[in-house]
Amino acid sequence: AAHGARKMEDYGRFLALLASTLLVGFLSVILSLVWVFHYREGLSWDGSPGEFNWHPVLIITGFVFIQGIAIIVYRLPWTWKCSKLLMKFIHAGLNAIAMILAIISMVAVFEFHNAKNIPNMYSLHSWIGLTAVIFYSLQLFLGFAVFLLPFAPVHLRVALMPIHVYSGLTIFATVIATALMGITEKLIFALKNPAYSASPPEATLVNCLGLLLVVFGSLILWMASRPHWKRPPAENAKILRPIGATPEGTEAESTMTNSSNADKSDLRGNTEAARKQNIKFDEAGQRSTM
Amino acid sequence: AAHGARKMEDYGRFLALLASTLLVGFLSVILSLVWVFHYREGLSWDGSPGEFNWHPVLIITGFVFIQGIAIIVYRLPWTWKCSKLLMKFIHAGLNAIAMILAIISMVAVFEFHNAKNIPNMYSLHSWIGLTAVIFYSLQLFLGFAVFLLPFAPVHLRVALMPIHVYSGLTIFATVIATALMGITEKLIFALKNPAYSASPPEATLVNCLGLLLVVFGSLILWMASRPHWKRPPAENAKILRPIGATPEGTEAESTMTNSSNADKSDLRGNTEAARKQNIKFDEAGQRSTM
Repeated sequence: AAHGARKMEDYGRFLALLASTLLVGFLSVILSLVWVFHYREGLSWDGSPGEFNWHPVLIITGFVFIQGIAIIVYRLPWTWKCSKLLMKFIHAGLNAIAMILAIISMVAVFEFHNAKNIPNMYSLHSWIGLTAVIFYSLQLFLGFAVFLLPFAPVHLRVALMPIHVYSGLTIFATVIATALMGITEKLIFALKNPAYSASPPEATLVNCLGLLLVVFGSLILWMASRPHWKRPPAENAKILRPIGATPEGTEAESTMTNSSNADKSDLRGNTEAARKQNIKFDEAGQRSTM
Repeated sequence: AAHGARKMEDYGRFLALLASTLLVGFLSVILSLVWVFHYREGLSWDGSPGEFNWHPVLIITGFVFIQGIAIIVYRLPWTWKCSKLLMKFIHAGLNAIAMILAIISMVAVFEFHNAKNIPNMYSLHSWIGLTAVIFYSLQLFLGFAVFLLPFAPVHLRVALMPIHVYSGLTIFATVIATALMGITEKLIFALKNPAYSASPPEATLVNCLGLLLVVFGSLILWMASRPHWKRPPAENAKILRPIGATPEGTEAESTMTNSSNADKSDLRGNTEAARKQNIKFDEAGQRSTM
């Protein structure tokens, strides 16, 4: 009963954190719209500043908010009843939407620059932003080919999963850093008389937007990196696992009480291997239910 | 023998990655010096632009490079023979140096701004940067009180360690994002005729510096987040662990082959608890060798 209560408490904590994250994300999108409609020229698609304004709005909506949700979609406890395949489609779909919005938002800037004879791709913001979009597209393409299509061998999935997770989180953090650079650029360029340094209301509003993006990113990274909030392994993984696979690995660990460091990293390798085997059979089980 | 070869290969991979990280870090520091001495006014401490220039140099040297090394210092295999206490002192010491350099670099900007009547703390760069320095100082203070001083109870250390790791990595990423905003600001303000948008050599050099900071950060985060590159638990941790503690947890897992999701998250809790107990006794063992 005490354990059940602790589990409910943990579930409550997850929900509270999720609600905060959604709130911060929505607020960011709303602030970007207030910025663009109240302080700037609104939205249009005619080479005017209104076309440029699609850039912050679509980046914050798609490349920050939707990407963030795509990252934590496996963490939502009420989806654990759904098939893993369905969740993979949702994860891939949300990331695909984010990618498309990011590309449209880049087109808006290029068209605006070309209409106004402003050079393209000179700033650090543009260099890192374009690199992030390219890596994001590669990640989506590779993820689709390896984890969604049924052709990749299980050992390849097992080997690539940690890289997929690391790349995903690193690209996400880089996207937020790029958004902060973009905000900095735009406020310096757009605010003249009063200048950015005079802290007019627009500057304060958009600085707050930047802070919200950092908070949003931090919350997503926290939720994504808590091991106990991961989607539990599939049902049939347990059935498929060869009897004694896990105990063997752990037995070795518990009996080696005074090994050298080298030996210990050896046995760490063993339990790591056992863990990987679990994932492997989890994957295999998943594929058999497709 | 095959296992030993795989271990050597993994060790070689770690060394190659470490060498690349150090190279990228050194290159960043050197590029910041080239920027300041070749393209800008060099270094001085008299309210002139030469005083401002301490800001990028000290941030990149201290708050990026030294902080990065402090993060991965437990990962260096040749330090695994050293006592954990010594390594904690090195970790805390490097972070303290980074904090002092960050604070000096902020003083340089404030003094420069005041001498030139430029407002302070108006930009998103300054807001996030100051927040990062405050959180970094809190993290250092709390880490010192909880993990280095011998007063904190073991369960507090166990509970705070994941938060310490998460905060550390998130602050590090935020510092790099802030550096990228700072580079963006400085290039826009300093480059007139030719402007930043005309891509003079200084702009290209400093954009490359920004890219190197992103690569450095990504490498540090990769090395810090690979579980098999962690420092192995202490020798006596094994002796102190109560007999059967770990097998018990795992036995439960291997016998529950067709439990519901809720049950599985239950047993996940069990093995998590067992893992925590290991850390706990590791800590305890450590403290007994102090």
